[in-house]
Amino acid sequence: MASPRWALPDHIEDALPEEAACIENLRRQLLDQFRLHGYQLVMPPLIEYVESLFSGTGTDMGEHTFRMADPFTGRVLGLRADITPQVTRIDAHLLNRSGVARLCYGASVVRTTPRSLLASRQPIQLGAEIYGHVGIEADIEIIRLLAHTLKAAGVRASRIDLGHIGLFRALIGRAGLSNEAERELFAVLRSKDVPALQALVAPLDATTRDALLALPTLYGGSETLERAAAVLPQNAAVAAALDELRAIAKALPDLPLSFDLADLRGYDYHSGLVFAAFCGNSPAAVAHGGRYDEVGQAFGRARPATGFSISDLRELLDRNADIRLPGAILAPANPAPALAAAIAALREANEVVVQELPGHIGTWREAGCDRKLILRGDRWMVEPLQGDE
Amino acid sequence: MASPRWALPDHIEDALPEEAACIENLRRQLLDQFRLHGYQLVMPPLIEYVESLFSGTGTDMGEHTFRMADPFTGRVLGLRADITPQVTRIDAHLLNRSGVARLCYGASVVRTTPRSLLASRQPIQLGAEIYGHVGIEADIEIIRLLAHTLKAAGVRASRIDLGHIGLFRALIGRAGLSNEAERELFAVLRSKDVPALQALVAPLDATTRDALLALPTLYGGSETLERAAAVLPQNAAVAAALDELRAIAKALPDLPLSFDLADLRGYDYHSGLVFAAFCGNSPAAVAHGGRYDEVGQAFGRARPATGFSISDLRELLDRNADIRLPGAILAPANPAPALAAAIAALREANEVVVQELPGHIGTWREAGCDRKLILRGDRWMVEPLQGDE
Repeated sequence: MASPRWALPDHIEDALPEEAACIENLRRQLLDQFRLHGYQLVMPPLIEYVESLFSGTGTDMGEHTFRMADPFTGRVLGLRADITPQVTRIDAHLLNRSGVARLCYGASVVRTTPRSLLASRQPIQLGAEIYGHVGIEADIEIIRLLAHTLKAAGVRASRIDLGHIGLFRALIGRAGLSNEAERELFAVLRSKDVPALQALVAPLDATTRDALLALPTLYGGSETLERAAAVLPQNAAVAAALDELRAIAKALPDLPLSFDLADLRGYDYHSGLVFAAFCGNSPAAVAHGGRYDEVGQAFGRARPATGFSISDLRELLDRNADIRLPGAILAPANPAPALAAAIAALREANEVVVQELPGHIGTWREAGCDRKLILRGDRWMVEPLQGDE
Repeated sequence: MASPRWALPDHIEDALPEEAACIENLRRQLLDQFRLHGYQLVMPPLIEYVESLFSGTGTDMGEHTFRMADPFTGRVLGLRADITPQVTRIDAHLLNRSGVARLCYGASVVRTTPRSLLASRQPIQLGAEIYGHVGIEADIEIIRLLAHTLKAAGVRASRIDLGHIGLFRALIGRAGLSNEAERELFAVLRSKDVPALQALVAPLDATTRDALLALPTLYGGSETLERAAAVLPQNAAVAAALDELRAIAKALPDLPLSFDLADLRGYDYHSGLVFAAFCGNSPAAVAHGGRYDEVGQAFGRARPATGFSISDLRELLDRNADIRLPGAILAPANPAPALAAAIAALREANEVVVQELPGHIGTWREAGCDRKLILRGDRWMVEPLQGDE
């Protein structure tokens, strides 16, 4: 064994005190925003039967999921790699509301492989979902909530790209492709592999061919929708998708919206609008979302659904280096009631007070102390820690 | 498959909105208390190599831990069933402080089998540890912190039992038993199986035999220590252990302390004091703790250590039924800036405001609304929700 006993697996990390405090703070801020907007927290379990985890939006999760046998039943359990299918299960089967359900979550997921070279295999996923409302009002609310919560957490979105799965579906419908050809086309579009795309669309009718070739070029500002209307086939499905995007953008004039009509992420389960939020100049989205209206069916109840998830809370933190932990106050090991009262009052005022343990002079700074409680006359006062304390 | 696709495995549960909000609140309250007392939060990962998870206090965790292969290395990963070994690893190897480290954690662990018939296989474990201080001041602080945090969370400890692993070790040392005989003796003492105990101690010298037979009877109030001094062999190790217990009890006169000198929980890694906290009349402890001074050795650095862990946050909740979620305020779907300002002000004041989505009359109560925002004259007012809204 080359690495020591205590080495962690690749792409698996501890959060040590400073980072852990930042994660905890940011998680609370984001969940508080969700809560204040009416999104109710749910906590589905870390492990479930794979039949359930791989239903709905989880259909493509199989290769990313650690599996183990349940000693009670011998059935295969999965360590969840995504929380959205679990929340869909909860809405469809457990809450069973007739009206709108707004739900949110914020917890760790575990993947067999990381999403990218720098990503963790244990991202902290946070998200919010609206079930039960078919109109674009829900999509507008969800996008606004994402922008608002990112801003409230100090990581303003620099760009939110909108796309629509209905466009690709309309083109595929025209082409009359086999399932296999459809998957192939989907793959080259996702990878924006233009030569492969050209080869694949060559046998198709000219309108469809030109439209599919144009799709990867349809990104940018609001003019994108006009270009799309000009180059895509003029049928009802295409017109409806473009109208929807136009209406959503119109309702969110204050957000940095743009368009990426070849965004096919979550094609297996998304049914309409898709979107992705970016921070700073990073090319990797910090959050993804969209419509997935048919997904609850897998759990016995199809409900309209729209929502987003933040891929990894830690990736927001990296963009948010301003957070600083306040220092702690060292209190002497002294049983005086007046000292106990002073400590209690400081803690009540949200100050961290560390009670001294005898024999550790010179080590309190490493424990985060920068001040001390000291008796001046008959009052306990807070003063800066001296160099050698 | 007899159960539906969405059934959860036995002893695995979702937390739905009401319970999830209570869990989140209680977790924050407890972690805030830890923080204000100088305990720094750490977040070790859900999965690690088993060599690491089963070191130190984790030696008896093997049978409780789900295992899976790491696709990167083929090595065996475990889904953690306990967080303490991870925190010990962090203190020993990562922080590497010369002075005292106060660390805490609060997160889910997963067990292959539940601790009891009613327990979850995914308990939420919270705990606090002091590394680097050998004196009983640390033990006293840890017990006081446990009592304080339970009280702050509204679940006051009704009893805290103290024991000391040094007593059993001293008796075993006298008896000169084989490892196997020691394990057997340990097992019958833990199960308080008196007939089996009598058979096992029969061949021993009279003093050791009588002491081991007396051990299961040594529980109760402060008189227990006097009884123990009378019935246990009078050697230095026994005297030191009893002195330590006496000193700790003396320093905590305001806590409901009692003694259970046959408590051998964590015998594999505990080195001195052990304790268990109980709430109400429940015979199951809500938290366990004690000294484990040699444990860091497994990670390359032995440090004195003492701490506790709360077995499952949800079990505290069951005893804490007072928590009630505040109702939400329904706001109309109206783009008026004055309404937006009213909503923002309410949310700023920590009120949950749900913006209406059109077409769901009669369903807002199930979403948690009990009030609504309504325009009276030129002011937006909060009023009770009417019956059919």
